[in-house]
Amino acid sequence: MDTLLADPSVELQSRNTRFEQVTIIGVGLIGGSIGLAVKQRSLAHRVIGFGHNTDSLEQALRRDCIDRYETVLPEAVRGSDLVIVCTPVNTIARVLMEAAQHCPRGTLLTDAGSTKCNIIEELNDHWPKDKTFVPAHPLAGSEKTGPEHANGSLFQDRLTILTPLPESNAEAVAQVEWFWRSLGSRTVRMTAEAHDRVLATTSHLPHAIAAALASVTPLEWLSYTAGGFRDTTRIAAADPELWAAIFQANREALLLAIENFQHRLFALKHILHDDNGKELIHWLSEAKRVRDALGS
Amino acid sequence: MDTLLADPSVELQSRNTRFEQVTIIGVGLIGGSIGLAVKQRSLAHRVIGFGHNTDSLEQALRRDCIDRYETVLPEAVRGSDLVIVCTPVNTIARVLMEAAQHCPRGTLLTDAGSTKCNIIEELNDHWPKDKTFVPAHPLAGSEKTGPEHANGSLFQDRLTILTPLPESNAEAVAQVEWFWRSLGSRTVRMTAEAHDRVLATTSHLPHAIAAALASVTPLEWLSYTAGGFRDTTRIAAADPELWAAIFQANREALLLAIENFQHRLFALKHILHDDNGKELIHWLSEAKRVRDALGS
Repeated sequence: MDTLLADPSVELQSRNTRFEQVTIIGVGLIGGSIGLAVKQRSLAHRVIGFGHNTDSLEQALRRDCIDRYETVLPEAVRGSDLVIVCTPVNTIARVLMEAAQHCPRGTLLTDAGSTKCNIIEELNDHWPKDKTFVPAHPLAGSEKTGPEHANGSLFQDRLTILTPLPESNAEAVAQVEWFWRSLGSRTVRMTAEAHDRVLATTSHLPHAIAAALASVTPLEWLSYTAGGFRDTTRIAAADPELWAAIFQANREALLLAIENFQHRLFALKHILHDDNGKELIHWLSEAKRVRDALGS
Repeated sequence: MDTLLADPSVELQSRNTRFEQVTIIGVGLIGGSIGLAVKQRSLAHRVIGFGHNTDSLEQALRRDCIDRYETVLPEAVRGSDLVIVCTPVNTIARVLMEAAQHCPRGTLLTDAGSTKCNIIEELNDHWPKDKTFVPAHPLAGSEKTGPEHANGSLFQDRLTILTPLPESNAEAVAQVEWFWRSLGSRTVRMTAEAHDRVLATTSHLPHAIAAALASVTPLEWLSYTAGGFRDTTRIAAADPELWAAIFQANREALLLAIENFQHRLFALKHILHDDNGKELIHWLSEAKRVRDALGS
């Protein structure tokens, strides 16, 4: 992909110092899983969770995702050398700005948001020069939510996409990359624009069509479904508020992806109208070629 | 559903005589799994496989799906009291007619096709009065094909839909229903029209949209996919020829289902154009309500 940035050959293994204190803002499925992985792999001396829902924070504490929690942001980030924001995409920029005001000079910040341009645009020129934010998106998740489903292996062998800003300090970016790799994931760097364009098709569009398929199905027909329907609609069970925020944050790219998908479906309708068996096999074979390339 | 026929309270358990000889026409994934289940559950004294591909029939024999095979149809059905046609939907009616000419008076015939009206229409008035055909569709399958993936538990706890013809002998229909239940499946009866209308949405539409999604995805973007894309597109790997035949056999109902789905997607596009967060959450919540009702 032309928009992919070169991956600098930083010797990531050379950084073997642990973080002193990591703060996870938003300890749900993703934040909780990061906390578990950090603690299981001893990547930090202390892991602090921040949130507003103390029931959920207590749950995260019991599940050993965090060492302690705070409900006041300045307290949560004071003395942290790494802050990870795992809140819904429409809140990440705001939370980052507030955290940056209260954490020490030199602190690294990263996030786990499914969209990138909206966050970077919102930060704009307000970002303080003495802190580095490295946008990240681990391609891992579940239709389940909350720290009760946290899993320390969630990132193992998955891909984390980093969209570092051109002006960011290279060593700081490399340290954040080392962090995501230490959780078990592979990493790749690309521009935020490329990320949002690609993910519109590979992640946001699947959610849109899984949801559309589920909602055109009358409840009384569910007993006449099999594995195909079950798999195709699984992600329609995801949290509507989280996904509404993702769709809105990336709505232009998503609209293009839907357009593209609709063209493909219109082509199928024409083929069916014409009852053209040869073209139909061709249409289905194109899809099989792509899906087979992905593996089972 | 108004079109559902009443399920007569036949005492199915009372029929405890095994079949003398069962012939399976088309020993692929479905036919092979039926053979395995029949043999594992001792439902017949002999299971004969029929097909044209001797490599595949040898494979079915090695996997113990059948006791022997034939490649000449009259030989395969001679002396059978049950014949199950497991070929592609566009060949089932023709194969049934040919089998019916050569099997004994009183033989029961059933099939495993994913569409029902096209088969019944093609048989029309040509069906011999001394044999009973009970159309069936076990809601089980896989994107994999061939007897090497046969599984004797494929039908366990799944649903088999029967679409018996009004003129069929009630006892004969009950015996075929007993057979499908003996493979481990639950059964339900409905009209062929109701079956095809429901399955257009619950099975054929998911295949169409999984395929459309897979084929709008550039191969070089596959590494940026996660579980959502993987699940949503899984059935796009299915056999294009089998599915082209299903789509063509049920094309009118499928076209209506696609239309319905497109309306739902158009609604999403309008919501995104308007950037209406509240409506977007509502749109996604509708889908979640349906998918949650299905269970995980």
